[in-house]
Amino acid sequence: MAYLVEIISVGNELLIGKISNTNAQWLAKRITSLGGKVQRVTVIGDDVNEIASTIKESLNHKPNLIITTGGLGPTFDDKTLEGISKALQKPLKLNQSALGMIRETYRKAHKLGILKESGLTHARLKMARLPQGSKPLANPVGTAPGVLMPHQRTAIISLPGVPVEMRAIFENAVAPIIRRAVGKTHFHELSLNITGIVESELVSLLGQVMRDNPNVYIKSHPKIAETASRIELHLSTTSSTPTTAKNIVRKAADEISQLIIKQGGKVLSGGG
Amino acid sequence: MAYLVEIISVGNELLIGKISNTNAQWLAKRITSLGGKVQRVTVIGDDVNEIASTIKESLNHKPNLIITTGGLGPTFDDKTLEGISKALQKPLKLNQSALGMIRETYRKAHKLGILKESGLTHARLKMARLPQGSKPLANPVGTAPGVLMPHQRTAIISLPGVPVEMRAIFENAVAPIIRRAVGKTHFHELSLNITGIVESELVSLLGQVMRDNPNVYIKSHPKIAETASRIELHLSTTSSTPTTAKNIVRKAADEISQLIIKQGGKVLSGGG
Repeated sequence: MAYLVEIISVGNELLIGKISNTNAQWLAKRITSLGGKVQRVTVIGDDVNEIASTIKESLNHKPNLIITTGGLGPTFDDKTLEGISKALQKPLKLNQSALGMIRETYRKAHKLGILKESGLTHARLKMARLPQGSKPLANPVGTAPGVLMPHQRTAIISLPGVPVEMRAIFENAVAPIIRRAVGKTHFHELSLNITGIVESELVSLLGQVMRDNPNVYIKSHPKIAETASRIELHLSTTSSTPTTAKNIVRKAADEISQLIIKQGGKVLSGGG
Repeated sequence: MAYLVEIISVGNELLIGKISNTNAQWLAKRITSLGGKVQRVTVIGDDVNEIASTIKESLNHKPNLIITTGGLGPTFDDKTLEGISKALQKPLKLNQSALGMIRETYRKAHKLGILKESGLTHARLKMARLPQGSKPLANPVGTAPGVLMPHQRTAIISLPGVPVEMRAIFENAVAPIIRRAVGKTHFHELSLNITGIVESELVSLLGQVMRDNPNVYIKSHPKIAETASRIELHLSTTSSTPTTAKNIVRKAADEISQLIIKQGGKVLSGGG
């Protein structure tokens, strides 16, 4: 059974194209390499109702894990926890453990001279107000803790939007959860760059190789335009050991390479 | 009334983190600059049922426009039109106008010596099979045409995943639709880089400036971690002329800069 993950990225800056969603790409890559399967990424704005309705839609898909990024900070447009609170009908409550983490961060920053004063203002306390029943996840490089909220069969985990903070909490607290759930599953991928054959000519060759190698997922990516005849073939599989995964992909790659050459195409490079 | 757009990006390569979703970022930026409002981006895999259910969810949000990218090519894992057909219950039918476009592309590629043969194989004909009632959009740089499908108050437009093809069809066929619908709306944005003040200290200053400048959207982005005291402030607005939009943003930027300096912070740079 695949371990299914949905990612929800919160932030108006993503919807106006100001920044690219590097957090979602990083998470997708890490989750895949851990053996999980990302089934959807949704990007929405800093709006309580949007966040709440997206969480509800996502729960309907029954993933094992929902990861949100962004919207955990101290400002008025950090609304992720309010949105989740609304979706789950769990009121926001001051969480003593989160409060302790935040107090400690500000105390240290004050001691180092970064902060003029370390008092817990209303804006700072906001980061310790979590949906009832949730658990804060320590943020080793920033202020806002991550938040873990179990809901029926799904774990909802909220991470900050600042990439260095998001990654640190993921590695400390989220990767172990995925590893435990997935058990021994290894992902392997490999790309072949080919030329001298167009995508529409590849179709029957791919069909044959996929029938012979049912555990390998193969996808063709025309690199410029379909008729420009330069294609990347991406092959991937998951298996119980890294060596098995590698061998399974290698066998399919050899088979498709031979067929392409036989058809008059060229395999320029392949690695993985 | 805002012109609301949803983007649906189709492709397993996005869900394994193999590539970043540059198409969605490019579209979000272009749509915003044309005066439209992107309210959601959804990334899903090459799966007919996923595509169909996402189209249905998206239609429930009643956007003016849904743009899909990816999954229009000749291979078996290009499933976008099949998914839309399923969602709208409009069967796929051979579209004569699309067929003409595709035939012409292969004829030219054959003439230029890029293609060995220009015949319309099953895989190639697939790109001309569109949901009933749709209109093909010419692809000036590739093979698969874009597709426009009106559905109640929403226009659904499918674009190829190859960036150069996606952009060409967008500029030729989609930008004019948005421009016509939006009328005179100009977006202006500006960023200020500030230091010497942390995000939690900024909150009350931002509140004041946003009350004084209700048409300006201001968002703070801590650049490293919250306590590292380096923040980008992003200000934006839309207005009926470019000059008005610029002046509205400039006024708010001046006001917040003065407040930050008064509080002991520094404004390192600002442009836009």
